[in-house]
Order: sequence, then structure tokens, then C-alpha cells
Amino acid sequence: MAKITLYASKASRSLAGYWVLEELGIPYTVVDVDLRARKHLEPEFLKINPSGRVPVVSVDGMIVSERPAICALLADRFGYGSLAPKIDCQDRGPYLKWLVYATTVVDPAIAVRASDLDAPLQHTTWDTAQGAVEILEHALDGQTWLLGDWFTAADVAIGSIIAMARFNNLLPESQILNDYVERLKERPAFQRSEKLTWPPEVFSS
Amino acid sequence: MAKITLYASKASRSLAGYWVLEELGIPYTVVDVDLRARKHLEPEFLKINPSGRVPVVSVDGMIVSERPAICALLADRFGYGSLAPKIDCQDRGPYLKWLVYATTVVDPAIAVRASDLDAPLQHTTWDTAQGAVEILEHALDGQTWLLGDWFTAADVAIGSIIAMARFNNLLPESQILNDYVERLKERPAFQRSEKLTWPPEVFSS
Repeated sequence: MAKITLYASKASRSLAGYWVLEELGIPYTVVDVDLRARKHLEPEFLKINPSGRVPVVSVDGMIVSERPAICALLADRFGYGSLAPKIDCQDRGPYLKWLVYATTVVDPAIAVRASDLDAPLQHTTWDTAQGAVEILEHALDGQTWLLGDWFTAADVAIGSIIAMARFNNLLPESQILNDYVERLKERPAFQRSEKLTWPPEVFSS
Repeated sequence: MAKITLYASKASRSLAGYWVLEELGIPYTVVDVDLRARKHLEPEFLKINPSGRVPVVSVDGMIVSERPAICALLADRFGYGSLAPKIDCQDRGPYLKWLVYATTVVDPAIAVRASDLDAPLQHTTWDTAQGAVEILEHALDGQTWLLGDWFTAADVAIGSIIAMARFNNLLPESQILNDYVERLKERPAFQRSEKLTWPPEVFSS
């Protein structure tokens, strides 16, 4: 079995890293990168990810960062045909689209909304937060997961962002997304990942 | 052979769609989505991509949008082991990271810089344009492509953005990136794609 290490920080976007590993049910060790102590900007960590961000995953020494890439790599390696549609499957295109859409569109749309910008940005490749919500509502209306009845790593990539954004009140109201997040929260792997990302001491300090 | 259709617009980010197909050397047909006539916002096109954006690729009726997803899907299907490292290859992690980084970090960083924002954005997951350039310089320093001597679809995803951004003067000056773009421009597939994306009539109207 491959040796897997997850570099993660508490109360961060590391949720997606934990969650995809917990869905796969494979053993891994965690290195805590203490953001408050600015460990993510120290040379030792910058050697692993020059961007100074978590999560990062090492698989037998191979490093992968960027959440959709982590989800894609782990799902293809350890959940090929289950957590990831195979390359020749008709669902592979939509699967990759949603993986990418997570951080290409949803993350920036939330950042712009959270920053309360009144000036429109130039040369963007993303929608407004309202636009992104409408696209996701269109995709999820009447179905359980992004690929219909099939839960995949794309739901981890998109779902981890939406779950955090709703908690922080950073997305426009949407019943369809509320229901989607409720279904995501019922998954044991989500529940374990949520506890690992936001352990009790985060709230007590 | 699969029936491939590229939905593209002139003088747009469709470059990446043309380029990955030209690198693969596979036959495809093009549907011109006229942005000036707002064809990308008409119901017929919104059925294909509800986001109203190009490029979009159809492979035997399977739709894939978002440039890194288009590059990933086509490279896995038609260039597995050549334009894309195989799933069990040690280069697969870095390959996926750069694919994702293209639109998760580089595109937003350019958009913010082009918009001349003085207020820092909240909740972002990307670097500044200067930060992104430094990350790319770190990756490309002393090597030909993002994965060393191996040209992959990740170079198409990142390279198509950088080439356009340099043309529009939207990225900080960098000799390493200048040299990278010069190498990219020497590729016959890039040259064909550039002519298809910016045909002569774009400049005469």
C-alpha cells in the first residue's frame, strides 16, 4: 500500500484533503501545518508547496497540491471506477468539468462576494456568486449528486467549498444547495473530515 | 474514431481548445460561437454550456467545458502516456496540479491585476500576479516544460494563458516566462491554433 501523507491545517480548506481520503478509506498520516505559527511560510514547507498553501498530499513521495488535483489524483489511483469515472466513461467529461469548476469559478466568485467589491473585475473567467449558484442549482436540480446517483470526488471538490461558504454565509441563499449540503453532511466520511478539520480546540481558543 | 466538435469563438480563450486538439493531431470540426452576435448567450448554446462560455468540446456527444478539464479529458483519451502522464506515473500529481493551477490561480491573478484593484480580496485561494509569476519561474527555471523535458497538456493549459497575458501586457515582466512563451510559440500546433483563434479578419474589422 502506498504511503500517503496529508499536510493540513486546522480550520482551513484542508477539509477537501481529509474528505477524499476518508471516502476512499485508505490509511494516511497527517502533518499539521500550524497557520498561526506561520509554518506554511517556512522554508521546510515551501519546499513541499512553494505556494505556501494547504492541503498538500504526498503519495510515496510524489507531491500534489491544489484541491481538485488532489481529489483527481487520489480518486484515479485508489477509487478508479468508483470515486472517479474511468477515462473512457461518458461521465468522465462532466466529472472533470466539476472538479475544475470548484476552484476556477466557485472559489473566486465567493472571494469577490466576500470582499464586497462594487467594481466589476476585468478579464475574469468566472461568474458572480449568484451566477455560480444558478449553475450549480441547474446541475443539482432533481438529482442527488453532481453526476446523478453517482457520488464522486467532484462532489468532494465542490461540496467542500459550498459547505464552508454556507457556514460562513458567503453564498446567496439556495434551497437546492441547502439540500445538497444536508445530503453531504450525512456521509460518515464528511463527518469524520469535519471533525478533523475543526477539532474542538479550534473553538475553545 | 470519436466524433469531436470544438465550440470556439474568435479572439477568445478558445486557444487552449484548438491547441490541445492540434497537439493530439486528431480530426475535429469547429462550431463558431459568435461572441459579437451574443450567440454564447442564446438558448441553443446554453444547453451545451449553461455558463455561456467557450471553449467547449463534445466527444461523441459527451460535453466537457472548463479549459483544464478539456485538456485533461482529451489528453487522457487520445494521448495517454504521451500528452498526459498515466495515472500510476510519478508525474501525474504535478501534471494535475499545473492543469488546475492554470485557471485556479493564474487566471484570477491576472484578472485582479487587470482590474487595477487596490483593495486586497478576502477569502482568496490565489496568489497575486507577481506571486504566480514567481511560482511559475520556480517551476520552469532551468527546464524546458513544466514537467522537465516532457511537454504535456499542462503546458497547453498554463501556456495558453501566459501567452495571451503577455500579448495583452497583463503579467509582470519575467525573462523565464518570456523564454517559455518563445519555446511554446515554436511548436507547430501552437502556430496553427494561434491562426485559428485569431484569423486575419479579427484584425481587419
